[in-house]
Amino acid sequence: MADGDGKPLIALAMGDPAGIGAELLVRLLADEDVGKAADLMVIGDRRVLALGGRQAGSAADLPDLDGFASDGRALADLGHLDPGDIEVGASSQAGGDFALVNFRIALKMAAAGVADAVAFTPFNKHSMRLAEGDYVDEIGFIKRTVGAAKDGSEFNILDEVWNARVTSHIPLAEVAGHITPERIEKAIDLTLESMEAAGFERPRLAVAGLNPHAGDGGNFGREEIDIIEPAVRAAADRQLAVEGPFSPDTVFLRAQAGLHDAVLTMYHDQGQIAMKLMGFDRGITLIGGYGFPITTPAHGTAFDIAGQGKANPGAAKRALTIGADMARRRFAGERGFPDREARIESVRGFFRGGHA
Amino acid sequence: MADGDGKPLIALAMGDPAGIGAELLVRLLADEDVGKAADLMVIGDRRVLALGGRQAGSAADLPDLDGFASDGRALADLGHLDPGDIEVGASSQAGGDFALVNFRIALKMAAAGVADAVAFTPFNKHSMRLAEGDYVDEIGFIKRTVGAAKDGSEFNILDEVWNARVTSHIPLAEVAGHITPERIEKAIDLTLESMEAAGFERPRLAVAGLNPHAGDGGNFGREEIDIIEPAVRAAADRQLAVEGPFSPDTVFLRAQAGLHDAVLTMYHDQGQIAMKLMGFDRGITLIGGYGFPITTPAHGTAFDIAGQGKANPGAAKRALTIGADMARRRFAGERGFPDREARIESVRGFFRGGHA
Repeated sequence: MADGDGKPLIALAMGDPAGIGAELLVRLLADEDVGKAADLMVIGDRRVLALGGRQAGSAADLPDLDGFASDGRALADLGHLDPGDIEVGASSQAGGDFALVNFRIALKMAAAGVADAVAFTPFNKHSMRLAEGDYVDEIGFIKRTVGAAKDGSEFNILDEVWNARVTSHIPLAEVAGHITPERIEKAIDLTLESMEAAGFERPRLAVAGLNPHAGDGGNFGREEIDIIEPAVRAAADRQLAVEGPFSPDTVFLRAQAGLHDAVLTMYHDQGQIAMKLMGFDRGITLIGGYGFPITTPAHGTAFDIAGQGKANPGAAKRALTIGADMARRRFAGERGFPDREARIESVRGFFRGGHA
Repeated sequence: MADGDGKPLIALAMGDPAGIGAELLVRLLADEDVGKAADLMVIGDRRVLALGGRQAGSAADLPDLDGFASDGRALADLGHLDPGDIEVGASSQAGGDFALVNFRIALKMAAAGVADAVAFTPFNKHSMRLAEGDYVDEIGFIKRTVGAAKDGSEFNILDEVWNARVTSHIPLAEVAGHITPERIEKAIDLTLESMEAAGFERPRLAVAGLNPHAGDGGNFGREEIDIIEPAVRAAADRQLAVEGPFSPDTVFLRAQAGLHDAVLTMYHDQGQIAMKLMGFDRGITLIGGYGFPITTPAHGTAFDIAGQGKANPGAAKRALTIGADMARRRFAGERGFPDREARIESVRGFFRGGHA
């Protein structure tokens, strides 16, 4: 093993070029902890990197593949977007195309074992939809791209608290109909597995109720009694540290107080309202269930401050270090990490093979 | 005017005797700001007051009606509960009966113009339901008690942020079906009226969406487009400072940042998750729409710390001072506040008349 140093390789896809992503990228490249945690293969366009350098007011160096052995990082420059063609702070089809191409390549790289984890700077949903009309969210796109048989699962992580959900991007009117024992049990298992992969020995999971006051004993809905409580009991019977259902409006106070490591919520905003209030700038999103970790900061493209040199890289940095940590736990013992010369060969082979 | 000093009179009902209410009451009586804000007519049992004194570790003095003229406060001792008959920290029918009787009298006192505002220490919903099987929440009970034609409206207030909601104690599955333009417009009007009564000159109200990302342009639900946005526009057309719909998971961040004075949420937990995270111990609940303010701390009976001398009276104090403030704005100019001798007479008349 030459310079590989046993480090995981993260395929880092450039997100929407009109947002704060390019600036974040430059700040991440300058961060020592990021350098220690992982090697990086950035997927995008060198002109967008240069834009990020101007936005951040600092140098934006990144060698091409030849420099990877010494630097542990390189840019796969696809030369597919001139930032002069897009407007900073506005969504566009070109921005969506750019982000989707980068993300697709990063995913395929990890699915082929060429990279160990995927990360990306923020996407803009409107741009994504301009580029691909039926784009709903990352979960569906990843599933199609890697040809997975089943949906993965999205987690939000803030400091020490994880949040997973049973339903996500669906109308509130449809939520109750989607709450089944099977879905809850599957979400419990996926959550605990992902947390174990991230280093929790025995993750303690709180399950939220669906209704006000968790149904108040059946007075405001019976899902807690008929569906959620039996699912929690089934998990507890398997000796898992799962409790609930708890009242939705206080369950995050319990987690914040250290009583639980994670909260399983029944719908999107039950968790998102809480997580964003607890720390809008610090949270990350982890997508699990595809054999390698996929991480991104939970905040968006922040069009309102794009290009102003104000972007806070804290969450993006944490997305990279958690992804690296999970990749290390998953692969270090099993197949290890190749040295950098071997990495260069496998990345070249990947592009030659037209996998992208 | 003798000692009346132009002060509003708050009818303060003792809540569940098994919780922290008695201790809170004793701490409130010792608070100078409370004394300055309002005169108090406490409804309950002297033995529960004494229990509160032991719990708080301080004297629990309160004269009977004869002492009201000098003290500006008195206890209407109904002699209906021996605290030795109930267990501290547990719900009971006796506790529910006690709280309901006190609350009913306080409400009737205010409805008759004998008091200017109502406040109460926390109720326990389970005790209330043991006492009155069909008890759902305060709104319904108040409506029946004062014989109101229409429902009032509940607000949560935390520091400078108000929260009102279109639906409340109903199953989540029924929420979407209850979101109509009429209900939203009514909630907007009630909220702005109550805030004006509390002293806001031109309250700035943010209306939350219903669905994740406020429906994401119709991708995750159409209520924002079909119902909420038109209702907001109708209010804005009336020159009201109403904006929205905003994404439910960031609208409270906007209010916290000072962009809005209040948030109108579509369902219970959309607001409650946020308000409890923003300050569980400081929030109060205001019930408006009955011609006089009704306030209580937003926290509950806190059975887990009842009797331990640890109760924080901050929210209860704020409930009293906001109630006093609203009563002052509502009545001071209109009919003024009678002096204390006249108060004693009207309270005596109230009890003699069997209104209780």
